[in-house]
Amino acid sequence: MRPFRQVTIAHEHCDLMGGVYDPAQARIEAESVHACWVKYQGSDDPVFRDRCILIKEERGELVKHHVSVLWTDYFKPHHLEQNPEIHDLFWKATKAAGDAKKRMDPAVAERLISSIEEVAEAFRATPEASGAGLYPESTPHRVMS
Amino acid sequence: MRPFRQVTIAHEHCDLMGGVYDPAQARIEAESVHACWVKYQGSDDPVFRDRCILIKEERGELVKHHVSVLWTDYFKPHHLEQNPEIHDLFWKATKAAGDAKKRMDPAVAERLISSIEEVAEAFRATPEASGAGLYPESTPHRVMS
Amino acid sequence: MRPFRQVTIAHEHCDLMGGVYDPAQARIEAESVHACWVKYQGSDDPVFRDRCILIKEERGELVKHHVSVLWTDYFKPHHLEQNPEIHDLFWKATKAAGDAKKRMDPAVAERLISSIEEVAEAFRATPEASGAGLYPESTPHRVMS
Amino acid sequence: MRPFRQVTIAHEHCDLMGGVYDPAQARIEAESVHACWVKYQGSDDPVFRDRCILIKEERGELVKHHVSVLWTDYFKPHHLEQNPEIHDLFWKATKAAGDAKKRMDPAVAERLISSIEEVAEAFRATPEASGAGLYPESTPHRVMS
Amino acid sequence: MRPFRQVTIAHEHCDLMGGVYDPAQARIEAESVHACWVKYQGSDDPVFRDRCILIKEERGELVKHHVSVLWTDYFKPHHLEQNPEIHDLFWKATKAAGDAKKRMDPAVAERLISSIEEVAEAFRATPEASGAGLYPESTPHRVMS
Amino acid sequence: MRPFRQVTIAHEHCDLMGGVYDPAQARIEAESVHACWVKYQGSDDPVFRDRCILIKEERGELVKHHVSVLWTDYFKPHHLEQNPEIHDLFWKATKAAGDAKKRMDPAVAERLISSIEEVAEAFRATPEASGAGLYPESTPHRVMS
Repeated sequence: MRPFRQVTIAHEHCDLMGGVYDPAQARIEAESVHACWVKYQGSDDPVFRDRCILIKEERGELVKHHVSVLWTDYFKPHHLEQNPEIHDLFWKATKAAGDAKKRMDPAVAERLISSIEEVAEAFRATPEASGAGLYPESTPHRVMS
Repeated sequence: MRPFRQVTIAHEHCDLMGGVYDPAQARIEAESVHACWVKYQGSDDPVFRDRCILIKEERGELVKHHVSVLWTDYFKPHHLEQNPEIHDLFWKATKAAGDAKKRMDPAVAERLISSIEEVAEAFRATPEASGAGLYPESTPHRVMS
Repeated sequence: MRPFRQVTIAHEHCDLMGGVYDPAQARIEAESVHACWVKYQGSDDPVFRDRCILIKEERGELVKHHVSVLWTDYFKPHHLEQNPEIHDLFWKATKAAGDAKKRMDPAVAERLISSIEEVAEAFRATPEASGAGLYPESTPHRVMS
Repeated sequence: MRPFRQVTIAHEHCDLMGGVYDPAQARIEAESVHACWVKYQGSDDPVFRDRCILIKEERGELVKHHVSVLWTDYFKPHHLEQNPEIHDLFWKATKAAGDAKKRMDPAVAERLISSIEEVAEAFRATPEASGAGLYPESTPHRVMS
Repeated sequence: MRPFRQVTIAHEHCDLMGGVYDPAQARIEAESVHACWVKYQGSDDPVFRDRCILIKEERGELVKHHVSVLWTDYFKPHHLEQNPEIHDLFWKATKAAGDAKKRMDPAVAERLISSIEEVAEAFRATPEASGAGLYPESTPHRVMS
Repeated sequence: MRPFRQVTIAHEHCDLMGGVYDPAQARIEAESVHACWVKYQGSDDPVFRDRCILIKEERGELVKHHVSVLWTDYFKPHHLEQNPEIHDLFWKATKAAGDAKKRMDPAVAERLISSIEEVAEAFRATPEASGAGLYPESTPHRVMS
């Protein structure tokens, strides 16, 4: 049994928000989007392919949501002073999610995951998130089923 | 920039599913539930407290959803042969999420996170998930804001 | 005008929950899934068929949700002592809903409804639900439009 | 094991719709709304009471949705010729659901269930629904937990 | 910078509701439905066309929701005395949204927007809404992207 | 009967998106948030006040969603060249929505509507939106009920 989680409380007097920030939420859904593309390519059954498109649409929307929550609720003005690229990073990540919804193009799916990684790096670079999150430096395996 | 993610494809001929499995999704929401309790305790503002109850309700429901998806979509009969406790583990985890929605009791919030950890251990013990997931052996920091 | 409903209160000191339990909720959505298959087979219009797939996906998800709520919120440890098959019944029912989302196979759609019926029987066999629910012993007509 | 369900197909050349019509869906949620009132009255715990209000809001919204689907998708112009009161019945039922969301008044909760019963009677009176539905002539028990 | 908005409070002792009424919500989504048809016609890419069907389904459902909220929550008995056609107008508008979900027929998409316009006229004709809303007498441009 | 809407198609070869852009969607929900504050102040009934908090939470979330869609899906790199303030305007607008969810402070509610107006001005200043949208130069009445 692992030791209980360590929680860093970033702001003592903050508003109540969604709760807890971790780019893993966006990352996991981005990998689902990629998985939908992989499965679409691997099948010639039109019903199965239709479901790939449908599920990719849902998962892409969830990526946009999680990225948006990080941008709006986690990042504060002092973060922007340290990293003026934050707005643009997030804008591009959400646009990448939109593109990945629209295309069945492997480059687009891979670009989405790269964008989310850049967002995660920006998150990890903030003092409050130093060492935080479920996002380890090692590359995670993802189990697809 | 980290190397691209490694993805283990667990089942080649599987149906399309939500995508990618990781107990991190349930874990992050469980920590949000716990965060709601922390903030509720730390405030005597009735409007703020009302929002804690409301948000905890939503997050608890998301925990139940993510746990349910893992149980239904990831675990297969051969997993059950290896670990006959799986059903009971998941049943207790979803009931713990239900309890955490209902109570403002620190023990209940802590029990939820323990239950999710047990679910995560069962997941990591499956051959397909060996070493997989975003869930490292080290205890994650969670940034609360 | 029919007499007012009779309500059996199963647990006096329970938590507040979704409210009121009845396998009819899962049953109605399972019949919708079946209806989607019927209509898909009866049409060669690709737009119509696409909508059948889409709506079947939504309804299948609702079946999983209603089954999950019954399993998590209604069934208690003492029910499990009386019927150790409960976990497995519910696991198979939610897996059947997943299969019915994925396939356009009449056997799969019929198997879903059978699974829901088994869940309903387990529900009706519990002392608190004796004679309860909207689920009469007679076979319901369903009006499809 | 009960015999397989009998399904009446009301319209052969209809559009694909949600699937299957049954006032039971609105009825079950209306009883949940009533259950929320019962539990609110029976508790003096402010957290519990807050959750009653929150859940009643959600369930009331679901009543409105199910009633609306029946009105929009099931009823056809020929039904209106037979029963010119249909619009008004549905209007009052959805307004009753709105009232039940707003009030902690037993008369309001009871009026909601009566309204839903009137809607169900109008449904049962249509030729396509003759004998159909999960809604038996006997009064259902509802198991509350 | 434009002057601050003028708000007409229609009912002083009303229940809390969704908030603020404006047929623009239904109108904007109806135009999205129409846009989906335009784009479907303009493409022969099967993946793109699938997404048109999917998004049209979602937007059509939103039209039904916004129309339903106006009918249920805004219109009161005294409005019905002034305009006995209100129920039928709303019924036809929601049925038009259902048709527009089902068909890829330009006449159906146009009919939806006409129905919403009739609903908007009924709204503007009520004393409380005299001159109100975001719906100007001039025809709005809609920017499609 | 008003003439049929004029629609400006901004991009011929664009991806399919949500459909049609209009800051009115964000604006209407922002006014709902403000209405919730007005009603909260005007009542001393604790149940009514609880519902104000709950509904304000939902509406505030919808403001964030509509603002986010405009930022991500409508604005393109060439808009940013013309107006480098766009990211910051949108960031502040979504943060204002977050604040308005958290506070029962009239200044916060008013600030939200001002932020949305600034977003709308940025939208109207883009060449594609010149004269477009449902957002007239005159101040809209809003009917509250």
